[in-house]
Amino acid sequence: MPKKEIKSGCHLYPMPVVIVGANKGGRANFMTAAFCGMMNIKPPVVALGLELHHFTTAGILENGTFSVNLPSTAMMKVTDFCGLVSGHKVDKSGLFRVFYGKLDTAPMIEECPLTMECRFMQKVDFAPDGAFLGEVTAVYCDDEFMDGKLPDIAKLDPLIFSMSDNSYWSIGKKLGKAWSVGKGYQ
Amino acid sequence: MPKKEIKSGCHLYPMPVVIVGANKGGRANFMTAAFCGMMNIKPPVVALGLELHHFTTAGILENGTFSVNLPSTAMMKVTDFCGLVSGHKVDKSGLFRVFYGKLDTAPMIEECPLTMECRFMQKVDFAPDGAFLGEVTAVYCDDEFMDGKLPDIAKLDPLIFSMSDNSYWSIGKKLGKAWSVGKGYQ
Repeated sequence: MPKKEIKSGCHLYPMPVVIVGANKGGRANFMTAAFCGMMNIKPPVVALGLELHHFTTAGILENGTFSVNLPSTAMMKVTDFCGLVSGHKVDKSGLFRVFYGKLDTAPMIEECPLTMECRFMQKVDFAPDGAFLGEVTAVYCDDEFMDGKLPDIAKLDPLIFSMSDNSYWSIGKKLGKAWSVGKGYQ
Repeated sequence: MPKKEIKSGCHLYPMPVVIVGANKGGRANFMTAAFCGMMNIKPPVVALGLELHHFTTAGILENGTFSVNLPSTAMMKVTDFCGLVSGHKVDKSGLFRVFYGKLDTAPMIEECPLTMECRFMQKVDFAPDGAFLGEVTAVYCDDEFMDGKLPDIAKLDPLIFSMSDNSYWSIGKKLGKAWSVGKGYQ
């Protein structure tokens, strides 16, 4: 079957759902984002695609720190709410129990199973917005979501985003081991 | 329960699984990657975290074009194989039926339900590797994976990656609509 060209856009499936945290004027703020990807292992580097007008974006530039919090599917409603209202108009600092780590100014969400504390590295400009790169300096995860020394994706039960239908999804089934199932394919 | 600090790393769950395509010396090559995220809507910008020593990385810099191909769960073995062997040692050009779009030099995979054709924009350097940003100039998707004018994530059945257990996963269930379920939360 020949491939058909469709309207161009952000057709990456799936995308993660994260809640980005930053302080602005001393107040914790949080925004929901799906434009997020890991970019490097050592040091761990995360990239966020953020519009410049966001309250959170200004907070990242103000303090040079931010957090990437992973909500569970049980947190779908509050996560969606965080993406519906702007910190410019609504004080979202009381939505969650907030804690701080070694960077002091990156507000993190206790209710999220896993959070990454990040030091802002650089902003990559392209019209009209940009990509924000940060080094993950610390990671926090509750025991109940771990399998030994590592987080367990099934226990994290992360919220997942599909852009074409603007919907939240859950993770499905484990299918096989990476760097393993393809051995001897050819 | 207080949050516990765990060993830092790439703790984003889930990650997508993509097969990046590029021509090198006139030969199509493909590598599997999970460090991938959308960064912007208009124009659509995708970011890849790639190590500089990869054959594919050299191909991106050679032609200024690349492709991001989304494999289905049925393609798990060949996708894993693509990540196990290097184009420096193995000719992977015959693994898939390859087609080209308007950019001429970005090899795309017909077997993948959806592919994005990309023009390389810039490389963001950080030790020891970098992030590669590209504008998505065209998207191709077979009719059978569409719901009207848009791709359907359930039909795409994308392969998903969890880094902590190095495993491939499937997508789960649709849970709710974004920019909707959180209305009136507070």
